[in-house]
Amino acid sequence: MEQLGRHILVEFYNCDKEILNDHGLIEEYMKNAAIEAKATIVQSAFHMFNPWGVSGAVIIQESHLTIHTWPEYGYAAVDLFTCGDTVDPWVAFDYLKKTLKSDKTETTEVVRGEAGRIRHFSPEKYDQIHFKPVEEQEKKCV
Amino acid sequence: MEQLGRHILVEFYNCDKEILNDHGLIEEYMKNAAIEAKATIVQSAFHMFNPWGVSGAVIIQESHLTIHTWPEYGYAAVDLFTCGDTVDPWVAFDYLKKTLKSDKTETTEVVRGEAGRIRHFSPEKYDQIHFKPVEEQEKKCV
Repeated sequence: MEQLGRHILVEFYNCDKEILNDHGLIEEYMKNAAIEAKATIVQSAFHMFNPWGVSGAVIIQESHLTIHTWPEYGYAAVDLFTCGDTVDPWVAFDYLKKTLKSDKTETTEVVRGEAGRIRHFSPEKYDQIHFKPVEEQEKKCV
Repeated sequence: MEQLGRHILVEFYNCDKEILNDHGLIEEYMKNAAIEAKATIVQSAFHMFNPWGVSGAVIIQESHLTIHTWPEYGYAAVDLFTCGDTVDPWVAFDYLKKTLKSDKTETTEVVRGEAGRIRHFSPEKYDQIHFKPVEEQEKKCV
C-alpha cells in the first residue's frame, strides 16, 4: 500500500515512575528513540508539569514522536509517527519500552496519508504520491 | 468510560495548498485551534521544510496538537490529543477544517489511558484515575 506515513499509538503501562517524572531523562530518551530509529531531529519542545508529569514532542524530518507521562499511574501515552522507508518507528518503540521499563504495552498502527485516498478525494491528478527523501528535505530554520 | 485522554487522528484532504506551505499561518492556526478548544498552550515547535511542507507541535497543558503538511498533495495529517473535560478537540477540528479550507476530512477518535486497563495491568491499587484539573497543573518552565 502506498502511504505517506505510519503512526504507532502506544500505551506504556507499569513504567518506572521516577523515570516518568524526570524531565531530563524523558527528553533524552525521546530524542535517543528518534536517533535509534534513524530519524533526523529538527526541533523539540518538552514541558515539566507541577507537581508531576512530562509532556513533549520531537519533530523529526520524518514527522514526530510525542509523549505524555502520568508518573502517579506508571503510564505514558506515546505517539511514533514516521514517514518514508528509512525510519522504523518500531525501533523507537523497542527503545522506549526498555528505557521507560514498561512491562506491559499496547499498540495500534495507523496508516497516515494513504495515497489511494489522496488521489480519490482530489480533483487533481497525482501520478506519484510519496514521501520526499531526506536529501530533498534540507532544513531551513525560520 | 473513564479515560485520561481522547485523541482524534485527522486526515485533511484538498486543503488550500498555499496555506499548507505557509509556516507562519500554520503555526498561527494551530495555536488558535488550541485556544478555541479552551486548551492552555505551554510550548510549541514548528519547522518549515525546503522546498515545501510544515511540521509542528503545540504542547498544551491537556496534551498536544500536531500537524504535518504536504502542500503538493493538498494534504495534512493532524493529531488532536486532549485530556480532561474542559477541552473539546472537536472544536479544534472544526477550526482547522475551516482555516485550512479542507473540503474532505476523515477522522478516527482513540481512547488514550483507559482507566480500566491501567488498573488491570498494574500491581498497585488505584481508586481514582483521572486527569489533573488545570488548576493543579501550574507550569514550571525548565
